[in-house]
Amino acid sequence: MTQHRNRRVILAERTTGLPTPDLFELVEDDAPSPGPREVLINNVYVSADPGMKGWISTARNYASVETGATMNAFSVGVVVESNHPDVAEGDVVAANTGWAEYAVADPDRPTFRKVDPALAPISTALGILGINGFTAYFGLLDVGQPREGETVLVSTAAGAVGSAVGQIANIKGCRTVGIAGGTEKTAICTDEFGYSRAIDYKSTDDLDAALREACPDGIDVYFDNVGGDILDTVLGQMNLHGRIAICGTAGTDSWVPQPSGLRPERNMLVSRLRMQGFLCFDYADRYGDAHADLAKWVGEGKIRYREDVAEGLENAPAALAGLYQGRNMGRQLIRVRPDPFA
Amino acid sequence: MTQHRNRRVILAERTTGLPTPDLFELVEDDAPSPGPREVLINNVYVSADPGMKGWISTARNYASVETGATMNAFSVGVVVESNHPDVAEGDVVAANTGWAEYAVADPDRPTFRKVDPALAPISTALGILGINGFTAYFGLLDVGQPREGETVLVSTAAGAVGSAVGQIANIKGCRTVGIAGGTEKTAICTDEFGYSRAIDYKSTDDLDAALREACPDGIDVYFDNVGGDILDTVLGQMNLHGRIAICGTAGTDSWVPQPSGLRPERNMLVSRLRMQGFLCFDYADRYGDAHADLAKWVGEGKIRYREDVAEGLENAPAALAGLYQGRNMGRQLIRVRPDPFA
Repeated sequence: MTQHRNRRVILAERTTGLPTPDLFELVEDDAPSPGPREVLINNVYVSADPGMKGWISTARNYASVETGATMNAFSVGVVVESNHPDVAEGDVVAANTGWAEYAVADPDRPTFRKVDPALAPISTALGILGINGFTAYFGLLDVGQPREGETVLVSTAAGAVGSAVGQIANIKGCRTVGIAGGTEKTAICTDEFGYSRAIDYKSTDDLDAALREACPDGIDVYFDNVGGDILDTVLGQMNLHGRIAICGTAGTDSWVPQPSGLRPERNMLVSRLRMQGFLCFDYADRYGDAHADLAKWVGEGKIRYREDVAEGLENAPAALAGLYQGRNMGRQLIRVRPDPFA
Repeated sequence: MTQHRNRRVILAERTTGLPTPDLFELVEDDAPSPGPREVLINNVYVSADPGMKGWISTARNYASVETGATMNAFSVGVVVESNHPDVAEGDVVAANTGWAEYAVADPDRPTFRKVDPALAPISTALGILGINGFTAYFGLLDVGQPREGETVLVSTAAGAVGSAVGQIANIKGCRTVGIAGGTEKTAICTDEFGYSRAIDYKSTDDLDAALREACPDGIDVYFDNVGGDILDTVLGQMNLHGRIAICGTAGTDSWVPQPSGLRPERNMLVSRLRMQGFLCFDYADRYGDAHADLAKWVGEGKIRYREDVAEGLENAPAALAGLYQGRNMGRQLIRVRPDPFA
């Protein structure tokens, strides 16, 4: 076996606030060797995800990265060594291997999937045909349960998840309204992602009035990527038996100490609302269904997507920090090496 | 037809705060006459409900009473005049007729039910075999969806709804923990209603610690009658995929202006919680199922209940005000006239 020299980005320090580049460190060492039933992957793309704020936080979370460890991330790459009977050298695979050029993975884990490079660009395995698409699919359809003709409101509506939510809701016959930051993003919402209306929360003094104007029949489903004040406002405009899917809390920079907001329970009761947090990992056994539907819709041109690709692993921390300033336009990826299929 | 002289209590003034006796007025006039397909009922018991705070509030609510109108309430009484083919003079019926000795009702409304005086005391039609039992039944089983062996936490655990929730959860094989105000109520919780543990929130400095001690395996279902700070605390101790049924918001005196509390969305996301507001009226088409199960459980001695009966319609406003001081022990009713079946 060839011994590969590796480059990877480790978490140097955890934080209670937003991720900044100085919390990470690029290290060089030898690539690891795969154990029994494991494979070695040479990554092509790795991801920068809004949820990483939580992964590196000192607060309680659904996942976390220890200091000194390779920063966790989604990845797609090519298998260069396999000890697993179902995976061959040269296979393109998506896994959860982190910010590294080379990484070992266990194909028996549910996060490991083979990727067909003939179907779509392999980068989509980290976006619309991967975590973002699956998150949108299950969060909207299983948690939000929209019905034809209903109004579906989406925050971070131009983002990798939000844009997919809006388009799936349109496919299901809903009226879609987006919330995004800045006129460039609201223009993308209506011009590219099929939203009926898009609200620029940054230039709106009175979100309550703007929402009432954009959603004259009230809101039936709110797919929420931000929480915070926007959620507080939306809660007052939900229709009877409305559903709120809590997908992310990007609107709050730090949860230590836990911040305050308007109490939700009265609106929950009066309008008989259902609010539910979810993670797409909980639906891992149904990824196949989501992938089939999403690939079909992408192929038919019913779902569009955007990617924002930073070059070089060393730029991963800056790309991550940029997410929280809203600098990215679409799914934020990092190209670790030239894409052999592009 | 006999012309009956009537006494009823009207709402003189709406409020943003807690109900006080001076908001109501006792009036005397002639009893109304039933129209086509209507009946005239001579009430025996009427109710005082925690939800009435919302009914007379100037804030947005699911139901409201206008000033000058008879105060809305649940009632059980005897039909004295019937223009409906399915209802006979002398039938005992539960309806939603308000604080009045005589009232007209429409038997075709879903809130109108015949009551079998041989099955149980007719007052139970306003409690365990009526609104309270149905609220507990659907809120716990449909919204909370407890599974055998799970921990179910209930607030206002000794109350008319809470005590039924705890006992139904026990029947379903759950471990139950109650929260109540005062040692008399916590003693009733464990001695009479089968809770494994009961926490007196009034004498507890550190509810978080008390809950962790009483719920060492975390909380799977929270049946919440109070909201407020207690809900904030519970949210941090819910197990993965936990369910919160929002049944009432008795912990908050006024919703104008909307008060603040700890933001829930991070816990909702991290633990993938589901929080849902509900009203038992939404399940009116399934009251028959609930009644059958509850009557069986009451008959088998698996469900106990308490009633707190005030004498005379003129005492209804004071009985209502007492609810918010936690003065009642069990379902608060008002006896309008001697119970002919007692």
